[in-house]
Amino acid sequence: MADANTNMRLKLPITCFILEIILIILFGVLVEYDEETDAKKWHHSNHSQYDNDFYYRYPSFQDVHVMIFIGFGFLMTFLQRYGFSSVGFNFLIAAFALQWATLMQGFFHGMHGGKIHVGVESMINADFCTGSVLISFGAVLGKTSPVQLLVMAVFEVTLFAVNEFILLSILGTKDAGGSMTIHTFGAYFGLMVTRVLYRPNLDKSKHKNSSVYHSDLFAMIGTLYLWMFWPSFNSAITAHGDDQHRTALNTYYSLAACTLSTYAMSALTAHDGKLDMVHIQNAALAGGVAAGTAGEMMLTPFGSMIVGFLAGIISVLGYKYLSPILESKLKIQDTCGIHNLHGMPGVMGAIVGAVTASLATIEIYGNGMEEVFPDVADNKRTASYQGAIQAISLAVTLGFALVGGLLVGSLGTQLSPGICQVPGDEGSHEGQLTTVKTEEFAKPEETEKLN
Amino acid sequence: MADANTNMRLKLPITCFILEIILIILFGVLVEYDEETDAKKWHHSNHSQYDNDFYYRYPSFQDVHVMIFIGFGFLMTFLQRYGFSSVGFNFLIAAFALQWATLMQGFFHGMHGGKIHVGVESMINADFCTGSVLISFGAVLGKTSPVQLLVMAVFEVTLFAVNEFILLSILGTKDAGGSMTIHTFGAYFGLMVTRVLYRPNLDKSKHKNSSVYHSDLFAMIGTLYLWMFWPSFNSAITAHGDDQHRTALNTYYSLAACTLSTYAMSALTAHDGKLDMVHIQNAALAGGVAAGTAGEMMLTPFGSMIVGFLAGIISVLGYKYLSPILESKLKIQDTCGIHNLHGMPGVMGAIVGAVTASLATIEIYGNGMEEVFPDVADNKRTASYQGAIQAISLAVTLGFALVGGLLVGSLGTQLSPGICQVPGDEGSHEGQLTTVKTEEFAKPEETEKLN
Amino acid sequence: MADANTNMRLKLPITCFILEIILIILFGVLVEYDEETDAKKWHHSNHSQYDNDFYYRYPSFQDVHVMIFIGFGFLMTFLQRYGFSSVGFNFLIAAFALQWATLMQGFFHGMHGGKIHVGVESMINADFCTGSVLISFGAVLGKTSPVQLLVMAVFEVTLFAVNEFILLSILGTKDAGGSMTIHTFGAYFGLMVTRVLYRPNLDKSKHKNSSVYHSDLFAMIGTLYLWMFWPSFNSAITAHGDDQHRTALNTYYSLAACTLSTYAMSALTAHDGKLDMVHIQNAALAGGVAAGTAGEMMLTPFGSMIVGFLAGIISVLGYKYLSPILESKLKIQDTCGIHNLHGMPGVMGAIVGAVTASLATIEIYGNGMEEVFPDVADNKRTASYQGAIQAISLAVTLGFALVGGLLVGSLGTQLSPGICQVPGDEGSHEGQLTTVKTEEFAKPEETEKLN
Repeated sequence: MADANTNMRLKLPITCFILEIILIILFGVLVEYDEETDAKKWHHSNHSQYDNDFYYRYPSFQDVHVMIFIGFGFLMTFLQRYGFSSVGFNFLIAAFALQWATLMQGFFHGMHGGKIHVGVESMINADFCTGSVLISFGAVLGKTSPVQLLVMAVFEVTLFAVNEFILLSILGTKDAGGSMTIHTFGAYFGLMVTRVLYRPNLDKSKHKNSSVYHSDLFAMIGTLYLWMFWPSFNSAITAHGDDQHRTALNTYYSLAACTLSTYAMSALTAHDGKLDMVHIQNAALAGGVAAGTAGEMMLTPFGSMIVGFLAGIISVLGYKYLSPILESKLKIQDTCGIHNLHGMPGVMGAIVGAVTASLATIEIYGNGMEEVFPDVADNKRTASYQGAIQAISLAVTLGFALVGGLLVGSLGTQLSPGICQVPGDEGSHEGQLTTVKTEEFAKPEETEKLN
Repeated sequence: MADANTNMRLKLPITCFILEIILIILFGVLVEYDEETDAKKWHHSNHSQYDNDFYYRYPSFQDVHVMIFIGFGFLMTFLQRYGFSSVGFNFLIAAFALQWATLMQGFFHGMHGGKIHVGVESMINADFCTGSVLISFGAVLGKTSPVQLLVMAVFEVTLFAVNEFILLSILGTKDAGGSMTIHTFGAYFGLMVTRVLYRPNLDKSKHKNSSVYHSDLFAMIGTLYLWMFWPSFNSAITAHGDDQHRTALNTYYSLAACTLSTYAMSALTAHDGKLDMVHIQNAALAGGVAAGTAGEMMLTPFGSMIVGFLAGIISVLGYKYLSPILESKLKIQDTCGIHNLHGMPGVMGAIVGAVTASLATIEIYGNGMEEVFPDVADNKRTASYQGAIQAISLAVTLGFALVGGLLVGSLGTQLSPGICQVPGDEGSHEGQLTTVKTEEFAKPEETEKLN
Repeated sequence: MADANTNMRLKLPITCFILEIILIILFGVLVEYDEETDAKKWHHSNHSQYDNDFYYRYPSFQDVHVMIFIGFGFLMTFLQRYGFSSVGFNFLIAAFALQWATLMQGFFHGMHGGKIHVGVESMINADFCTGSVLISFGAVLGKTSPVQLLVMAVFEVTLFAVNEFILLSILGTKDAGGSMTIHTFGAYFGLMVTRVLYRPNLDKSKHKNSSVYHSDLFAMIGTLYLWMFWPSFNSAITAHGDDQHRTALNTYYSLAACTLSTYAMSALTAHDGKLDMVHIQNAALAGGVAAGTAGEMMLTPFGSMIVGFLAGIISVLGYKYLSPILESKLKIQDTCGIHNLHGMPGVMGAIVGAVTASLATIEIYGNGMEEVFPDVADNKRTASYQGAIQAISLAVTLGFALVGGLLVGSLGTQLSPGICQVPGDEGSHEGQLTTVKTEEFAKPEETEKLN
């Protein structure tokens, strides 16, 4: 306890202060307003105020923002008595990651005279990158200290930006909703980290994965916000006009179909016909992940529904049959089942994107081809070449995620070998209401009692 | 128990799979992108990207979406220990209904060369129709299996689309916020279904209608989201410009006035001066329902406030005095009190709409008449004729709802006579904390225990 | 008890009815649609529908609306067993205040031929004024009856409108996000009211300030919605284009930096290294308050982050060290710690605004100067004069708030000297789960039991 207290008492404040001061200095040196947020630059030329990208993207940004802070935060509250840490650490990690991501993505995606330009698009991209870190957080939930999570975020954001740069800028991959860059990367990175942090006696404390009544209702808040706003997520940075519109529509249908197949599979695979809240809370979202790459393409509502339908089935099967095997055979303890929600559906989304891209024709896309596949429109590459690039991008992403997760996980254990305690281990176990105590958050009355 | 398990184990998956596969096939055959979501069609002609309806309506759509999934879902969590099923079945029914509604509404509201066109407006309309089904769900909450609910949704969506077609397309009725098409229809349909499903011994298990502390806070989440976003609901599909703006404004004032009269009436009718959370959670929303038809008209803020003020009074009186009578005399067990929140305020909204329409003059509307009452602007009908049509539309809607609900309710009992169990009946009754157990959802720890 | 019941039974309904009827009459006499919501006026001239301010501001309005009803409402649910009253009274006060504010602000900010014009901008401004009342509510939470709260709202809204008129219209102060007009005013007004309502034996019932597990999760819902939507709050009424865009961006960075310094300070000041949920729930928001005045200026992301970083530190220090002193020495019982969340950060925001304004140059703002500092752009005043005006405005606001709060608080005790009971005083105190009973809300089962 003394060590843990010392850790929180000093390590967490020092880490936060150092990171934030570094961020502030780097922002002071490197960051400036872009053309649309700078008073002088915006008023230099003649615009309708509506041309400002703010009006095209800010509502989508706010939906994404809700997904990051409420969606991810509350989805993880299903662990009983760990809700404080789920929401609280989610908040801390996200607030840090979005600042760091602004710098890393700005650095890789093009400096302007040595400066990083910021505006609503950089805000959305930073939130996207943050989402990837939070996916990884889901795999190690309950096994790491906040300091370890911050260290993980530093490296994961960096690797995310490199991988994203290779895909979007070098290879010319399309991945607006991030099936590859966000979901596949975040999931396999997190799975490697949790593998490295494996503790053999953890599998005995199954109670940690149990939930209680109200925890599950809180988790449903997270689920539903993710589900409702996923169309905004996938369409947030697609091209203006039909692209944003179509992406939102495709994602909406994919999610609806996914929900029905999730309920069906959950009841079908249950031993007593009862629906499993974990499936509903997670697998029903797989349709959004799986439409992340192809959502902006001419996937059609029909195609979107098939994608969502299959994603729901795969995800429930993963929770039911694959997760136990991953834990027992591969020693991968995936607390939130991110492999089933983000991993497999992400890979599926990448494949769907590759196939859909390879089938693109000018008959279908017309002049809209320019915005979806600019290289194909400009005859720089064929549609099947674009499809092949999409497939290669999946392999690149998997490589970055697996190797990166392995290295960062090892670094985590090196840096602070003693911290990796499971908060639940100190919890009292009494009948059904076993309490996984959250170490890091004090309840006010406790503070007062001890004073 | 064995039957119920079998039902869930097989009937629910089979129903979900069959329905979703039918939907996918019909979408494949019948649905295509509209001019604003199709890459080729949108880029065929010259637009500003801002002309895309996405930017006019998507923020409203997302607000409506939140009302459907969070608003309706959590409003119904006030039933203690039935929160899973409230939110979970709300989620399932809504995900199905919005797909089916897209087909039914598309079929009736005009095919384009044999195809149904989809975009943000069809998304909003589908969510509207879904809202109507969820209103009916509120009447039978706790009395039906998910399979029964899905069957109900199939027929209710169909009848909704027919009634909506008759009103909007044949009669030329104005009902942007759906006082008639959504609220009146959904409420009286649901009341007839619950009448048919009446079980004489249910009135003994009053505990089912009781709530617990945290359940009521969850329900307040539902209430507040419905309250806050109701201006978006009523304005979501009104004409661009002043119409959307005015509708949102009118609804905002109606709701504010309604809230004050609700608090006043709740305290006034209480035996001990205590406010009743059920009134606050429900009656404060009646102002949104009652402004559903006239919200887009020149109702004035003054008129809107009177409408909301009266709606709150009527709704609380309904909860206090009418609901018990409906249950004891007419054998209508209205679990969520939808008659008080959607039924009476919906009828009131229809009447307000008829009166407001009949008072429309060119002095008041100017050139804006074209968008609110096109037939009056084009001198095809007088304002008083429009008012009469509005009143007739209420009668048509009531007829469809009552006859439809009677038929569908009877069908429901025919199809699965043994399913109609009240989950609460198996619950343990111990003092204040009587538990209405949710059969259909397993808590994770239970699943593990039984494995 | 009899008195309290009589109070609720008659005083609350009478107050609500009288206030709402007065509002309706005044709206009937004084309020009309503005150019953008009136069918005739809008269609009189030629516009693109997009020129309607609805599309510029309605998404921001809805975000602000969520902050007022969900954000403020749930942030105050951290008090155990007082959640009903927190959310419920928040709802009532807000619904009243936004109507009254529309009249008061309309009266002071310019009548149009004897009429108050309403539209989306008046809706946002009314919500802003309501926010100020809810801040004051946070100081007296648990110490006042709903009737007292309504009376407080009547006077506070009026004084708010006068102070806002002096600042924005007479002095030409810039305060888009309301560091002064909303936060400083609301905080110091509320602190004076709670000082006047001081009850010497209240400090013995410390339990009232304690929270329970789920209450804290509900409070985090409030916190996160305030945090996420604060960029919309600060930018909701800034000028179109770069101004709205820049304000949102600055606030976003200020909040992110504030979150890291809050976590750091919370762990650093804790006796055992545990994070204090009260700090996380409140201090992490101080960055939004502190960016309220300067957010629309060319503060730069760098400057915004410094402001947020310092605001978080100040706020946590306030909770930890200043609040106990205020209570013991100055007899100010600040239930929610609004001095730390709104008071000090508001003053800081005003100072940051004064400094930033005094540093404005045409080199930095270009033609954008016209929108941020019109008087400076028109050479009516220098930047340093503008800065001085900003500083004077802070003094004016503090004066209005302190004197106003003193008078209104005294009036409150005069009007209803017997009502000022602490609900918690009747609560049962049993071990850790001491129950602060909410008098004013009945739980349904209680109602039934007593009938």
